[in-house]
Amino acid sequence: MTFSFTGLSAFPITPMHQDAPDEARFATLITRLVEAKVDSIGALGSTGSYAFLTRGEREKIARLAVSHAGTTPVLVSIGAINLRDTLLLAEDAQKAGAKALLLPPMSYFPLRDEEVFTLYETVSRHVSVPLVVYDTPGTTQFHFSDALMRRICQLPQVRSIKLPSGSPTAEEAAARMKRLLPALPESTSPGISGDPTAAGALMQGARIWFSEWGGLFPRLACQLTDAALAGQKEDVARIEAVFAPFWEMSARYGGSLRVIASAATIMGLAGPGALPRPLQGVSPQDAEKLATLISTHQPG
Amino acid sequence: MTFSFTGLSAFPITPMHQDAPDEARFATLITRLVEAKVDSIGALGSTGSYAFLTRGEREKIARLAVSHAGTTPVLVSIGAINLRDTLLLAEDAQKAGAKALLLPPMSYFPLRDEEVFTLYETVSRHVSVPLVVYDTPGTTQFHFSDALMRRICQLPQVRSIKLPSGSPTAEEAAARMKRLLPALPESTSPGISGDPTAAGALMQGARIWFSEWGGLFPRLACQLTDAALAGQKEDVARIEAVFAPFWEMSARYGGSLRVIASAATIMGLAGPGALPRPLQGVSPQDAEKLATLISTHQPG
Repeated sequence: MTFSFTGLSAFPITPMHQDAPDEARFATLITRLVEAKVDSIGALGSTGSYAFLTRGEREKIARLAVSHAGTTPVLVSIGAINLRDTLLLAEDAQKAGAKALLLPPMSYFPLRDEEVFTLYETVSRHVSVPLVVYDTPGTTQFHFSDALMRRICQLPQVRSIKLPSGSPTAEEAAARMKRLLPALPESTSPGISGDPTAAGALMQGARIWFSEWGGLFPRLACQLTDAALAGQKEDVARIEAVFAPFWEMSARYGGSLRVIASAATIMGLAGPGALPRPLQGVSPQDAEKLATLISTHQPG
Repeated sequence: MTFSFTGLSAFPITPMHQDAPDEARFATLITRLVEAKVDSIGALGSTGSYAFLTRGEREKIARLAVSHAGTTPVLVSIGAINLRDTLLLAEDAQKAGAKALLLPPMSYFPLRDEEVFTLYETVSRHVSVPLVVYDTPGTTQFHFSDALMRRICQLPQVRSIKLPSGSPTAEEAAARMKRLLPALPESTSPGISGDPTAAGALMQGARIWFSEWGGLFPRLACQLTDAALAGQKEDVARIEAVFAPFWEMSARYGGSLRVIASAATIMGLAGPGALPRPLQGVSPQDAEKLATLISTHQPG
């Protein structure tokens, strides 16, 4: 069965324990997502610390995700600095049972357009499951032009794109999506990341939300996805108000992972040392604030 | 004998062959540097593709560098996204015989000040050879404040800093160096990268030039270093004029590695496929231009 790229795709963290993935707690996070009935699970996304893990660790985590996901489709990120490694990771993820692969133009030196095209072309020739173009300029320093994105979407296997809905600004991202959507092939499902502006993008034509906080608060994220796709603006506003202080703290820490990992520790879903070093969690004051927010709203 | 951090530190590429390091050609590059009498060799810098290689490959390249360098000191970069891996790489490099370690705040998510300080503090406690603070905002997206740089330079083992001399602009970089230098501990040797503005920085108080093109044109780079450290402005200008078209092309390709690898292939010092994928070399027209420049100036 082909995966349809719609609804909520929840991206769990990969909790660490003494510098290695905490497999038991990761499995629990996957089970929570299945129980919340997310549409798909994105293992080893940016939020899942793919960039910090070895090939062996990534293979193990991909297998764990698939084995605990049941019938929920699992997407796996295959980003790596070296294209050679990306091809190996693609093989591992497919063997593990991934229903789709997310490919960011990860790099050490910001890549050039022709290099990025060749990257996607090479990978698309090597894989048999759908590919998602993972546009994440905040980590890759690469900015897709409209022309390049359209060209990549013509490649075999490319079935979805993950656009940042808040970058460089929400307005510019919305304008870009409006330009790109009519130009994409039928076969490409437009998706977005950027939690605080995701519901707005879903109401403007995006079909799948690749969500960071959805990996920890899947029930709330499912509600937001449903409300946005149904165009229920009041419900959207009400649910966004619950997420807002978490998103605000994420912005303050330069990204969600540090805050989500701290929240997961508070919720007992991750142990101490849940982040890969050198990343650090939030300050004691913010941890207290998070604890209050979590116990008030029970957003999980 | 403690390494003194002065003069020219030449950073060779790590030529690739069929997606793996070309060990024979790398050894030849090291031998050329020794013969040109560079003051030190920086193996596995950004230009040496450290970020593209596995731990095993990096260990092998570090050993090769040391074994072919004779009495010329070898510095090795230990950058990694995961601090756990950096500590392992530091161990490997020291066992291989590295006389100093270069540590960039490499990251996937741009790091925060406290994370970067803890990174350097942790590594400095684990190593017994000098550490160089590798400031490379173009690849790490991390910008050191003056206060943080001074704080890190107080750590044990930190003996040099590698400041980008052309970033964000040559003027701002020069002003920053002028501010930082008097505030550094005696034990810290100020160094610079950024080939086109390096000689100017050496004339303004920098003591060591970590050079990308010096890895391929070591004789010319030695001459430029000597002229700059002796304050011979006319010689500096004459030698810079030879380098200029190579630097101009590097800027056009968003960094030196792509152009240096292409030049190395033209010179027979690297085979085809010398760059780690997905990086690509220069266009056929630029390769022709490079070939003409090389045969005219014989800059190696």
